Amino acid sequence: MLEPENAPSAIARVQTLRSDGSGTRRENIVVEEPLEIRIARGSIESSLAVTMRTPGSDLELAAGFLWGEGIVRSPEQLIGVKVCGDRALTPRQRANVVIASLAPEAAEIARHLERRFTISSACGVCGSTSLTDLHERGLAKVMLSPHSPSELAQMTSLLEGRQKIFATTGGLHAAALVDPDGTLQLLREDVGRHNAVDKVIGAALFDGKLPLAGWTLVVSGRIGYEIAQKAVAAGISALVGVSAPTSLSVELAREFGLTLLAFARAGVANQYSPFDTAFSEAQERDGVG
Amino acid sequence: MLEPENAPSAIARVQTLRSDGSGTRRENIVVEEPLEIRIARGSIESSLAVTMRTPGSDLELAAGFLWGEGIVRSPEQLIGVKVCGDRALTPRQRANVVIASLAPEAAEIARHLERRFTISSACGVCGSTSLTDLHERGLAKVMLSPHSPSELAQMTSLLEGRQKIFATTGGLHAAALVDPDGTLQLLREDVGRHNAVDKVIGAALFDGKLPLAGWTLVVSGRIGYEIAQKAVAAGISALVGVSAPTSLSVELAREFGLTLLAFARAGVANQYSPFDTAFSEAQERDGVG
Repeated sequence: MLEPENAPSAIARVQTLRSDGSGTRRENIVVEEPLEIRIARGSIESSLAVTMRTPGSDLELAAGFLWGEGIVRSPEQLIGVKVCGDRALTPRQRANVVIASLAPEAAEIARHLERRFTISSACGVCGSTSLTDLHERGLAKVMLSPHSPSELAQMTSLLEGRQKIFATTGGLHAAALVDPDGTLQLLREDVGRHNAVDKVIGAALFDGKLPLAGWTLVVSGRIGYEIAQKAVAAGISALVGVSAPTSLSVELAREFGLTLLAFARAGVANQYSPFDTAFSEAQERDGVG
Repeated sequence: MLEPENAPSAIARVQTLRSDGSGTRRENIVVEEPLEIRIARGSIESSLAVTMRTPGSDLELAAGFLWGEGIVRSPEQLIGVKVCGDRALTPRQRANVVIASLAPEAAEIARHLERRFTISSACGVCGSTSLTDLHERGLAKVMLSPHSPSELAQMTSLLEGRQKIFATTGGLHAAALVDPDGTLQLLREDVGRHNAVDKVIGAALFDGKLPLAGWTLVVSGRIGYEIAQKAVAAGISALVGVSAPTSLSVELAREFGLTLLAFARAGVANQYSPFDTAFSEAQERDGVG
């Protein structure tokens, strides 16, 4: 079904059901394969995470993931990332494993994070705890965006016509990075919203561009907590999405000064953050702050 | 921002940007909070997973998750599920933790699964390995759907007008279970596609309806590997989605005899599985099998 191997779209024969009858035809389908991210410490490798992703830009995905999770906190802590080279495996299997070599302090954080997946810190994991975690990781307020809200609201149009895989499969999310001058610099697609974001941030990490002060992250889909968290971790100033935000993404954006626009299409949008102080106080009175 | 606490939609003041000027207004936003699923073994609790979800039907979500992951394999293995009762925590924190009590054999599988998150079995995690894993878990071919493809293609219309939270927030996925007679029996919404599926399957588990032979799972969004896997694990006969499928979901559906329709709107759809034998052979020749 994959031709060529690891192509971002696959071809499958399907049965079409239409009002004027049915038939069969060949269709492009977005490729989904598991990517395992492993951490190498000397000769020992351990598995950190498995994500279902669309193959392509896999090293960037791993790098962006490691940055977004707070494992790699400076570019030099990422010593290297490579695809698994075990010749005992099939090419398809090898292509689904990447191995990151980390500086000792980053490897130590990865080890703790692995343990966090197994035994959680406390009974009380919740939204506020998560925001607290981000502060404890050392995440700081992001720089104010150099763009006006109406300029930001226009930026989703930059995605139009550039989503190559989406055009053929109808099944992908896109994430794009726009520089402080308003120029689209990077765009990646993936079956997973988070993966597309990890891919562009990983690419920026490889280019030595982090932190991305003054930059804008534009996403094709909805905005949840994890997307907003990845933006703040990369120092991005504004996050603009075509679809709806969630409550926790709005809380996080307001907390870290991230400008957040959603439902942005053709210059029309809602701005959720920053918001006036009066509202912040109202939030605190409601016991949410 | 949450009013009342754990309401599925929250109210936030936002800045609106329109071509005819801007203003502020109060908007409904879909609530996203982390849910931690813990496993109790006697007096010891350990954390199995954290999912970002929309509060509501949390016990069903946990039950459906445990079933879909192959931890609970018969209804009696799920002894109980409850919300965390630790009074030292705030109500918001307590509401984000559920604790499942399992029969010893299920608890043992959960323990192994926790370890699988930390140390993976081999370098070669990939699509085929995942399908092999499902066979090893004992998943069998599902029963043929009693509905014709054109009947199935109509079923996405059952979601229309019933997505309560989506109507106010624009930010939610829905999953619905349709019985062998074609009647909509259950519908749940969530910010996470997988969570909505876990919620309906968990509800069916509580109702003593598993396995769901002859039933149809209808989803509002795209169909990935995990959705198809959850359907097969519940014994569901047909999976119908409004949007695109992925390569791995098609492979899995064909492998387990799950009828799979996507891009289904107003009776128009593509059917990806089952498909004629000639095509399966062509697949094998391409080295995908």
